[in-house]
Amino acid sequence: MATLSDIGVSALINILSAFAFLLAFALLRIQPINDRVYFPKWYINGARTSPRSSRNFVGKFVNLNFKTYFTFLNWMPQAMRMSESEIINHAGLDSAVFLRIYILGLKIFVPIAVIALLLLIPVNVSNGTLSFLKKELVTSEIDKLSISNVRPKSIRFFIHIGLEYLFTFWTCFMLYKEYDYVASMRLNFLASQQRRAEQFTVVVRNVPHISGRSTSDSIDHFFQTNHPDHYLCHQAVYNANKFAKLARKRDRLQNWLDYNQLKFERHPDKRPTSKTGFLGLWGARVDSIEYYKKQIKELDRRMTMERQKIIKDTKSILPVAFVSFKSRWGAAVCAQTQQSKNPTLWLTNWAPEPRDIYWRNLAIPFVSLSIRKLVISLLVFALVFFYMIPIAFVQSLANLEGLERVAPFLRPVIELKFIKSFLQGFLPGLALKIFLYILPTVLMIMSKIEGHIALSTLERKAAAKYYFFMLVNVFLGSIVTGTAFEQLDAFLHQSPTQIPRTIGVSIPMKATFFITYIMIDGWAGIAGEILRLKPLVIFHLKNMFLVKTERDREKAMDPGSVDFPETLPSLQLYFLLGLVYAVVTPILLPFILIFFALAYLVYRHQIINVYNQQYESAAAFWPQVHSRIIASLLISQLLLMGLLSTKKAANSTPLLVILPILTLSFHKYCKNRFEPAFRKYPLEEAKAKDSADQSSESDLKAYLADAYLHPIFQSFEEEQEEMVEVRVDKHQTHIASPPSEPSSTSPSNYVHHPPSPPQYVHRPPSPPQYVYHSSPPHYEYDQSSPAHYVYAAPPSPPRYIYHHHEEH
Amino acid sequence: MATLSDIGVSALINILSAFAFLLAFALLRIQPINDRVYFPKWYINGARTSPRSSRNFVGKFVNLNFKTYFTFLNWMPQAMRMSESEIINHAGLDSAVFLRIYILGLKIFVPIAVIALLLLIPVNVSNGTLSFLKKELVTSEIDKLSISNVRPKSIRFFIHIGLEYLFTFWTCFMLYKEYDYVASMRLNFLASQQRRAEQFTVVVRNVPHISGRSTSDSIDHFFQTNHPDHYLCHQAVYNANKFAKLARKRDRLQNWLDYNQLKFERHPDKRPTSKTGFLGLWGARVDSIEYYKKQIKELDRRMTMERQKIIKDTKSILPVAFVSFKSRWGAAVCAQTQQSKNPTLWLTNWAPEPRDIYWRNLAIPFVSLSIRKLVISLLVFALVFFYMIPIAFVQSLANLEGLERVAPFLRPVIELKFIKSFLQGFLPGLALKIFLYILPTVLMIMSKIEGHIALSTLERKAAAKYYFFMLVNVFLGSIVTGTAFEQLDAFLHQSPTQIPRTIGVSIPMKATFFITYIMIDGWAGIAGEILRLKPLVIFHLKNMFLVKTERDREKAMDPGSVDFPETLPSLQLYFLLGLVYAVVTPILLPFILIFFALAYLVYRHQIINVYNQQYESAAAFWPQVHSRIIASLLISQLLLMGLLSTKKAANSTPLLVILPILTLSFHKYCKNRFEPAFRKYPLEEAKAKDSADQSSESDLKAYLADAYLHPIFQSFEEEQEEMVEVRVDKHQTHIASPPSEPSSTSPSNYVHHPPSPPQYVHRPPSPPQYVYHSSPPHYEYDQSSPAHYVYAAPPSPPRYIYHHHEEH
Repeated sequence: MATLSDIGVSALINILSAFAFLLAFALLRIQPINDRVYFPKWYINGARTSPRSSRNFVGKFVNLNFKTYFTFLNWMPQAMRMSESEIINHAGLDSAVFLRIYILGLKIFVPIAVIALLLLIPVNVSNGTLSFLKKELVTSEIDKLSISNVRPKSIRFFIHIGLEYLFTFWTCFMLYKEYDYVASMRLNFLASQQRRAEQFTVVVRNVPHISGRSTSDSIDHFFQTNHPDHYLCHQAVYNANKFAKLARKRDRLQNWLDYNQLKFERHPDKRPTSKTGFLGLWGARVDSIEYYKKQIKELDRRMTMERQKIIKDTKSILPVAFVSFKSRWGAAVCAQTQQSKNPTLWLTNWAPEPRDIYWRNLAIPFVSLSIRKLVISLLVFALVFFYMIPIAFVQSLANLEGLERVAPFLRPVIELKFIKSFLQGFLPGLALKIFLYILPTVLMIMSKIEGHIALSTLERKAAAKYYFFMLVNVFLGSIVTGTAFEQLDAFLHQSPTQIPRTIGVSIPMKATFFITYIMIDGWAGIAGEILRLKPLVIFHLKNMFLVKTERDREKAMDPGSVDFPETLPSLQLYFLLGLVYAVVTPILLPFILIFFALAYLVYRHQIINVYNQQYESAAAFWPQVHSRIIASLLISQLLLMGLLSTKKAANSTPLLVILPILTLSFHKYCKNRFEPAFRKYPLEEAKAKDSADQSSESDLKAYLADAYLHPIFQSFEEEQEEMVEVRVDKHQTHIASPPSEPSSTSPSNYVHHPPSPPQYVHRPPSPPQYVYHSSPPHYEYDQSSPAHYVYAAPPSPPRYIYHHHEEH
Repeated sequence: MATLSDIGVSALINILSAFAFLLAFALLRIQPINDRVYFPKWYINGARTSPRSSRNFVGKFVNLNFKTYFTFLNWMPQAMRMSESEIINHAGLDSAVFLRIYILGLKIFVPIAVIALLLLIPVNVSNGTLSFLKKELVTSEIDKLSISNVRPKSIRFFIHIGLEYLFTFWTCFMLYKEYDYVASMRLNFLASQQRRAEQFTVVVRNVPHISGRSTSDSIDHFFQTNHPDHYLCHQAVYNANKFAKLARKRDRLQNWLDYNQLKFERHPDKRPTSKTGFLGLWGARVDSIEYYKKQIKELDRRMTMERQKIIKDTKSILPVAFVSFKSRWGAAVCAQTQQSKNPTLWLTNWAPEPRDIYWRNLAIPFVSLSIRKLVISLLVFALVFFYMIPIAFVQSLANLEGLERVAPFLRPVIELKFIKSFLQGFLPGLALKIFLYILPTVLMIMSKIEGHIALSTLERKAAAKYYFFMLVNVFLGSIVTGTAFEQLDAFLHQSPTQIPRTIGVSIPMKATFFITYIMIDGWAGIAGEILRLKPLVIFHLKNMFLVKTERDREKAMDPGSVDFPETLPSLQLYFLLGLVYAVVTPILLPFILIFFALAYLVYRHQIINVYNQQYESAAAFWPQVHSRIIASLLISQLLLMGLLSTKKAANSTPLLVILPILTLSFHKYCKNRFEPAFRKYPLEEAKAKDSADQSSESDLKAYLADAYLHPIFQSFEEEQEEMVEVRVDKHQTHIASPPSEPSSTSPSNYVHHPPSPPQYVHRPPSPPQYVYHSSPPHYEYDQSSPAHYVYAAPPSPPRYIYHHHEEH
């Protein structure tokens, strides 16, 4: 049990480290050399092209304006200066709504904290039971401020119960207002958006194979029949996963080539060489530049063949398509209705925006999805409850004795007492640390295996899994001793009424632990976030070894994005802690308030200056946030019930039973009232937007033609357009030899696809894996063999655009 | 514990009583006088107008053809003669699919019974543990055939586990096939249906009130805007609940008047008199005929005023409407999509067919629905778990001592030993019997309070509640001693793993009880069903006192319908018993098989000859049946797990844990695969039917005009049409003075509504509450005051039919 002074020391340490991070950040961010690390968003926006102060040579790297050093905390007011609508324009709705979660936290917990501290602390302190029991229990000063200090059977518990009611109502009220506001924000955002491909497009999965008909034909036929007045065209999806793999490999090789060429430029006397074997450790020594050039050439040949194969082989057309409609109304209707008699065929859903699509999962056959879901949910369950088993196994291997046996020469060092104790304290934890570090990645991979086709969905699903893990292993795991599996086993052998009691009893005792947790994870951790140590180091490393042009430097920036799969669950954990301890140990609340305020400032700054969201889901994560907070409320009510029943305030149970029922009803109401705004697109809205934007059909057709082309093909096209000297007239090739047979109904339905829509020309380089390095200096090797590119410019995959007959 | 011979005696008694019922039925049904009780369906169909044999006077009442007495069981082959498609045509899909449940029971349990009896009985018998334990436990011969007889830790349990797997797979396989077949039956049925109002109509609830606009106007405006190409017209719904109440009262008075007039006709010397007070027990004595005539006249006046009020007052137009579309496609789209930004407004759903609508609930404000649902679910929970409390209270009052105190003169009778013991055995049970008798009605009322707007939904919801009650109080209540509340309390204080163990242990011991239950409820009960004792008595009573004409006689028939709220749950209970005992005590299975076979024959006969369904839901209850059987599977697996864990076959648990997971996955798959066929209407289907049936729009408009008129107004109109002498030109009145202001957009949009569609002209008299007695002999009293009817013929409520401008 920690005493108040222990907590004071811990607070001091964490406050100091938080300040150290903030100070380091303040110093580093005003150095011009770090400008691209701390303000990448402005570079991407085009508002900034080079560091602010570039007067002399030294000034390019170090800030010599000493006045700025004295205002080192001025990023905070700067971060506050932007209004919400400006943030929406600047960084998108996702980011703006993400910030609102912190504000919601403050809105909920500031009044709760004030009331709880003013009312409960006097009530708890003055009823000192613990002083009588001191001989038996080791208690801390914190406990004297908590509900533990109240005598069993005391009438004072009704104050706690009353406050639990009050806090529940207050939280629900704030949640309702917030849900309402976010839903209207979302609708306004969607309504104010320009014409976008996803408004007209529906993704169709599980297109049945009809013998004697190509997939494209049957899609055309089906939608012409069933949506005759609205169907516009569709874009087939190709299974380009193998091609994407090759492209990634080529990218890697290109990187090595660049690196070696740069090395050669800097030291023209020594041609770089490397070994061909595994990781360059053995094998024949070859000239690196020649070697990589040859390898890339070979890969280009294979990629061209693969591309030909994809385009020619009808089997590489997946039973998935992006179907576009003439109006938003038509798309809204198609997305929300059942198309076919067999409800597992012709599944329609809103298409995610093109940036948001996770292309690889489109190739997953639909039948396997439910099996994948089942397997993954079993795996997640196992991961959450049994993750300690493999870690314990690794720990048992990686101990000091094992180390000594492997490396006997280390013995004298290890045997030093100081180092030995350090290692003994450090090694067993290492496996756990590594596991926790890779956990979000593992959960993301699991979500990808589940087969969701949008990045936003993937992130939400990974966040849900991570929350489950944190709830069981951080929250419950800290309260109840033993591993999660032992808890599970114990719970299975307890009566359902016993479980909240077991947990409830331990709750007040763990308050000090969670206070420390909040300070480490919430205060220092968030302050560390703003420092961006990892991107800083990587940027400077890249700058040193790889960057040649301004454009390369731009690519070396890693703006990152709000890491929803990690931040949302930990944020939700703070809500849970706050709600659980509001009545039990209210002294914990101020710590949470500081977290919310600090994190709000930090993330506001980062969103304005750093992060660059990959996609825009229009706050699709909000229903999840809402229901997590509701779940936290329910948990807090259950645990309070358990806690009070051990306090022999048994007649309070009926009073408290009503609360979860009311909370659940509130949740259900909110779900009915607001969730459809996040899942469906009302026809009223679609119609209003349709009539406001009366663009011609051919216009729309041209606009939609390339929107949902696999990004690989898009990058290929862009590249070809840039390389003027090797371009052949694509369109002629296109019409002269259509690589797959034309649709039988309308032979003239091949239409030239214009260059991809503007959003792709200006698209940020953040997912650079498919974008070739195409600035002129790179292409010497290509220019030496232009024949290769002539060969590599076959028609891009055909898109079937159907001209409605009546309109011709 | 019952011995085998006990069960034999019980079986004999039940078989004898079943045979007695069947014999009585066979004798009664061939009497011409009972023809309308046992073959009402044919009268309704119009295939029969009078009893078959009417050669002489006696022959009209008693069957004198003695040959027919010797073939008294020939109803069984007769019942089998109709094919399934004939049954669908004859009685509707609901009835045909209802019969398939019994066949499904046979299909599932015949192979299971054969395998279980052949394999398990030898395995169980030969491993006699019970003979060793005989001193401790009182066991029966039945137990020797059950799993109780197998030694703990025996390897033989793997046979039971294997069979549980086999039975689960077999059940799932049959369920899958059946779901598939029923879904396709439903789709075929819907596809083969003639043009029906509900195919084009959507019910819209929660129409918002826009100030300055009538509800009808805003509905017109909204759907013209958002479904411009498809919207046809709408029918407003009037709050006619008060009118309906008056109509019911008038009906009752009319009945009394008829009765008294008939009495007077038979005894012209004595004018019937009655007292005006409560129940005719006191008050002034008056001439009955005059009295009722006056009363009816007064009521007619009030009804006319009420009708005027409904039509004139815009407040009586509810925020609910039946919106019709030009095509099935348009209706399908509207029913499946979200209309408005606010998802609680403009809620669209498929309209139930007109016969199926429960009009009274349309007036429930939508906001209160979720509260109603919450309150009712709490009430159902309380009813299921605490129903014994009020009954025990009533029982404590209604004992012999209480009876003696109230009626001391009965003492000598009560004190007789035989009567006393009979009463003591009988009285305490009486309250319970009464409760169980009225339970389905109570549950139906609860469902009505929940606010569902279709009779079919109401019946399904009542069935769900009844199943829950049976599961807890019949199944669990018989296995575990004590009231449901005590069980709940005990379960809450047990660990979740303990509960299946507690129940599992008692399962084999209760086999004899359930065998007796099956024989009483399943054999004798079903045989009693075919006898139709209650309708028989009521019909003859009515025949004696009320019937004057053939038409009255037709009305006195009470064909009834399949009582889904009671039969479905008890049917599902048999599935549960069969699946639970298949592995545990397989000797129970033949009893269930006999039930399924007998019930199939009986219901087939009843459906062909007796029942007349009020509505057609196209087998909408099937998903419920399916998921109940899945739930039974899960329960059987859990209980087997609990049972085996007490048998120390603990290593079997992991083997058995897989089974529920597989079953649940199967359920989820089936839900995805088939349930949409019962909830949604695929666009493909709608489009195909639209193009097959190319009727003109004005045709459709005329067809739909009156389809969803409140039946009260309809009966009023019909009546007016029959009474030619008092008819005024309705249409002139209609156009001359439209009672509510015309829609501002198109002043010519009032259209004459033709007489209601054919289905209403031929509609069966089963729900006769709103149909006035309108055959000529009845209306002497009306004809004496024709002025009343002239007054009562104001325009029927206006219907807004929108002419799409482009088509004019």
